[in-house]
Amino acid sequence: MNDIYYHNSYYALMQKNVPFSDARIAKYPEPVHIVLVKGPNGIVNPMSASWVMFTSIDPPMLAVSIGFQRYTYELIKQQNEFVICVPSETMAAEVKYFGSHSGQDIDKLAELDTPTQATSVIDGILLSEASANYECCVSGSLCSGDHMIFTGEIVATHINEKFVPRLFVLEPKKFGGLRPLED
Amino acid sequence: MNDIYYHNSYYALMQKNVPFSDARIAKYPEPVHIVLVKGPNGIVNPMSASWVMFTSIDPPMLAVSIGFQRYTYELIKQQNEFVICVPSETMAAEVKYFGSHSGQDIDKLAELDTPTQATSVIDGILLSEASANYECCVSGSLCSGDHMIFTGEIVATHINEKFVPRLFVLEPKKFGGLRPLED
Repeated sequence: MNDIYYHNSYYALMQKNVPFSDARIAKYPEPVHIVLVKGPNGIVNPMSASWVMFTSIDPPMLAVSIGFQRYTYELIKQQNEFVICVPSETMAAEVKYFGSHSGQDIDKLAELDTPTQATSVIDGILLSEASANYECCVSGSLCSGDHMIFTGEIVATHINEKFVPRLFVLEPKKFGGLRPLED
Repeated sequence: MNDIYYHNSYYALMQKNVPFSDARIAKYPEPVHIVLVKGPNGIVNPMSASWVMFTSIDPPMLAVSIGFQRYTYELIKQQNEFVICVPSETMAAEVKYFGSHSGQDIDKLAELDTPTQATSVIDGILLSEASANYECCVSGSLCSGDHMIFTGEIVATHINEKFVPRLFVLEPKKFGGLRPLED
């Protein structure tokens, strides 16, 4: 396959103005992440989240946008540290479950018997099957509409011993559509 | 293909601690974007950027992380508005060029004869071949290491008249590896 794709008149089409709700489809396939934070009860709570990006190379940093209503929002404010997990293609069931249940009353990792292992710097947990895990210390926050953006300095990084492709969400509002990308 | 992938013992491997530079590979394939800002010379400057995420549903908002050394950083500070373009699979040449040249001395859109059209709210320009374009007004900023995070309220959204798949970067430090995902 060629490395570079050139203009194709078929695609030289005009943009049309639409409501935001219609435009969001353009973002798919979208990478998905799992945010892990230890609660005051000692239980680490995982929440699926798409809105994560790297923000700095030196020092390595990333940002995550968390809804004010989420249990994870309260936990990050209390704990000031979190893990961003990059789930592998085998973890669609976890991402679906972690994104559709609140951890306020249940131990989601125990419910699914998800393999975990110890963090190396912060007080938390890593997901063993993931493509990668980033341990982060909160360094700042910025309110953005109905969410809070937390920036985190990446204090430890972990990848799978073998390369395992990451998971993507393929369609909006349809977690059942989760599947690995065919590369 | 099944919707959900279950645990596979082959993938139940342990995480290993690595330097951040090694762990970044786990983020690929990574969605790519083009940030467009009008300069004081009246020329709209496009810069390729991967670090973009949605941050709010109501109001619709997004965030972009821009290096302090970038011309685009100066332009956003001056203009306080920008367009985030989601390039289509036909725009790999643009993404490669816009991501490897500074607009301080050249008119990048003119150099490539990139099809554009008028914005509807802010003072800028849309890329016609793109999968989508979001017009944004800056609402906040947060320093994050060697980059500045700008949040923008999305004041107008545009999508292509036909669905055109978005472009992804498949490998680190290798823009030549840009190509559409095979879905």
